[in-house]
Amino acid sequence: MSLPDLRPLLEPESIAVVGASASPEKAGHVLLRNILDGGFPGDVYPVNPREGEIAGQRAYATVGEVPGAVDLAFVVLGRQRVLSAVQACADAGVRAVCIITAGFGEGDEWGKKEHHNVAAVVAESGMIAIGPNTIGTVSMGGRLLGTFVPFAHWEDGPVAIGAQTGIFAGPVMVEVMSSNTQRLGVHASVDIGNRVGIDELALLEDFAARKQVEVIGFYLEEFADARAFLARACEVKLTKPIVVLKSGRTPQGARASASHTGSHAQDDAVIDQLLRQHGIVRAETAAEFLSLLRGFSYTGVPAGARIGLITYSGALGVIATDELVDHGLELASLQPSTLQTIKGLLPDWQAARNPSDLWSAAEVDAERTLRVSFDAMLSDPSVDQLLAVMLAVPNIDFATFGEAFAALRKKHPSKPIHLVLQGGIKHRWTGAVEGLGIPVYDTTRDAVFVMAATAHYAAVRDDVPSAHALS
Amino acid sequence: MSLPDLRPLLEPESIAVVGASASPEKAGHVLLRNILDGGFPGDVYPVNPREGEIAGQRAYATVGEVPGAVDLAFVVLGRQRVLSAVQACADAGVRAVCIITAGFGEGDEWGKKEHHNVAAVVAESGMIAIGPNTIGTVSMGGRLLGTFVPFAHWEDGPVAIGAQTGIFAGPVMVEVMSSNTQRLGVHASVDIGNRVGIDELALLEDFAARKQVEVIGFYLEEFADARAFLARACEVKLTKPIVVLKSGRTPQGARASASHTGSHAQDDAVIDQLLRQHGIVRAETAAEFLSLLRGFSYTGVPAGARIGLITYSGALGVIATDELVDHGLELASLQPSTLQTIKGLLPDWQAARNPSDLWSAAEVDAERTLRVSFDAMLSDPSVDQLLAVMLAVPNIDFATFGEAFAALRKKHPSKPIHLVLQGGIKHRWTGAVEGLGIPVYDTTRDAVFVMAATAHYAAVRDDVPSAHALS
Repeated sequence: MSLPDLRPLLEPESIAVVGASASPEKAGHVLLRNILDGGFPGDVYPVNPREGEIAGQRAYATVGEVPGAVDLAFVVLGRQRVLSAVQACADAGVRAVCIITAGFGEGDEWGKKEHHNVAAVVAESGMIAIGPNTIGTVSMGGRLLGTFVPFAHWEDGPVAIGAQTGIFAGPVMVEVMSSNTQRLGVHASVDIGNRVGIDELALLEDFAARKQVEVIGFYLEEFADARAFLARACEVKLTKPIVVLKSGRTPQGARASASHTGSHAQDDAVIDQLLRQHGIVRAETAAEFLSLLRGFSYTGVPAGARIGLITYSGALGVIATDELVDHGLELASLQPSTLQTIKGLLPDWQAARNPSDLWSAAEVDAERTLRVSFDAMLSDPSVDQLLAVMLAVPNIDFATFGEAFAALRKKHPSKPIHLVLQGGIKHRWTGAVEGLGIPVYDTTRDAVFVMAATAHYAAVRDDVPSAHALS
Repeated sequence: MSLPDLRPLLEPESIAVVGASASPEKAGHVLLRNILDGGFPGDVYPVNPREGEIAGQRAYATVGEVPGAVDLAFVVLGRQRVLSAVQACADAGVRAVCIITAGFGEGDEWGKKEHHNVAAVVAESGMIAIGPNTIGTVSMGGRLLGTFVPFAHWEDGPVAIGAQTGIFAGPVMVEVMSSNTQRLGVHASVDIGNRVGIDELALLEDFAARKQVEVIGFYLEEFADARAFLARACEVKLTKPIVVLKSGRTPQGARASASHTGSHAQDDAVIDQLLRQHGIVRAETAAEFLSLLRGFSYTGVPAGARIGLITYSGALGVIATDELVDHGLELASLQPSTLQTIKGLLPDWQAARNPSDLWSAAEVDAERTLRVSFDAMLSDPSVDQLLAVMLAVPNIDFATFGEAFAALRKKHPSKPIHLVLQGGIKHRWTGAVEGLGIPVYDTTRDAVFVMAATAHYAAVRDDVPSAHALS
């Protein structure tokens, strides 16, 4: 089966909003506003039989009356009126529909039946369709902010996200996008909803082919076809890391999912094993999902699992060591020359080791301690990744903190640096390293999770799935 | 063996700072300043042979020359001079010493030997001693900010912490104490360092007896005597929850600990089992440790593990359900009347369930949705704890958000509410519930971890350890 060309959905030249509203608080208004304010370059047609004009655009009574061709129609109507609207879109030659309305497969018996009626119209017409029960589509390739959740700003970047629900094009993403630091650049975020038309495999195919996309994420409650998806994902992940947040892992979670997206339980142990075997990175929470996407897009893929560990507190070094080991990482055996360089920073009685507790050294000369010790660790061929757990406190601050890290990144561009910052000036330090490709975490556990996942990906990336494993 | 009375350490009437410095950046100056600025009500004597006055206080050449009796002496000198200073304290009748200086048991051979020399002087004198290698002692009972880490503010409260290192009286605590929301009140935080004198059992005994203390935490890299400590902890935890962060869990972590505090590896599997069996709550990271102390001090002890789950996103409800189950919690089977009340808030097609996805309802009337649904869940006798995963976004905000939670807490004072907030206005909402005893988390995992730990504590609190288990 050849997969559909998603350009009408992701790079439409014209858009109709069926159910556009003149009331500013209604989803049918905010969606229209987002599209217009987001800078969509093509024609936008509000469809509403009771209004002459909405948000400065002439409104039309039906989609059939729109003067130009419509690539993409959003449907934002009461659920009773969705079927006829989708039929009207098909009749008018619309190429893609995005059905925002909820209350179908995840709802009552009427909704489940109506889902099939809509699906039949979609299948017959050959339209690309997403939804029902979707928050919409954001696609920077099409300069399209097609969601009814208000975004002040959307940061373009190397990440693409496909989701079965609005979580990553909606309110969670508002917080991500409104952050001034640790920005996550997302080129596309598509909420396929209850999958009345395309499924996640079509999205994967599009993301695989799309040059701007370097890291791919999926939030799924149920695979439409797990084996087909994973077979293709195993090929795509050779060049683009894929992160999957598959919820409904537990029987209780699967039941909650049934009433959320109408999904069915799938054997999680099987899925988990398939994901791990084939280098598809699994997240279990929304926070892990975002951390992994940020990690891959910031640091790229590390050479391995040998960690150089710098701490500004001995206790935090001990705790971090435990956590590294918990996650299958190892402390690098530093070269003698590295140890000698670090020893030069320490008081007489303290030996140089991995982990290196640099608190005493930093109190004497914070800038020199940081520049010399980080450079020594990053120069060491035994170190694949650097983790620094730092106390962000004024007495070891220095004005050129950001410059020091810029120099380190420039000298060692392919060796990931992960920072854990705790203390009163952590926001200053986080801001100082913005744009340098350095992930910053509140806790060691969060950092270690990402470092372990990227290292595991590096180790298995080139494995080719056996036919047996996926059969 | 009777344990020492720690009042000279925690509620001294007079203090000497041996090694007080006139240089503002030196530890011997900041420590003195903290004691004075922290409002210590007794006499404070700087000891320094080269200064006549430091920080407005008359300085003395030796501790023996101090005119009054000295309850507590801090020693902040180069490590070569510590032994003679401790001897001088003993000779002068000082009752407690706190040796700040590092470089003993955690350092080189000389340091290890010198540790024993100092210990001999301490033992002979009968002084209470903590350190070497300690960041100091904070004790609100004595209005004593006895640490060289600068604190602008220290919040008194029901928590007491004992630690083998400075992590919880130092920079990590600066961040905790500088927060305006989710404040953690700490009555005492004592860093016993390399334990040249008292160990954690003496602290436990003091905290057990101290009326203001309701929750107890320990950070340890090595138990001085695990069985003696746990035997007593099992009794104390009948009335006061005890949280232990024991690092050096892994062989690599234990090695890092050896060079940090000179600790020896202990069989972690045995310790872990003993802790769990006897209702001592274990944290694995600094963040977990603080979350548990906050959780216990905010919500008290829940009745059990049956969770009412409210979410403002279906996907987050599915993910949260998975996480509840992962941690051994269960979704409460809501009573019919509870379901009926919640159903009254939902659109026609959506059934009331646990978890309850209230997004659609909140969009219609956010305040009523919150007040009615939370009250219904909290009123349900099948619900032991309430977890709410909320999208903090402006379109479901309302002015009386804080008042709504105040009313809920007043009506249901013994049923814990845990909030996970995500979105642009989470800081406003976090501020609105400040002081109501409602823990707020960034991630569901953090919340579920605390809810599971408090539920487990509730389940095993009254178990009496068998002699066998501790033999």
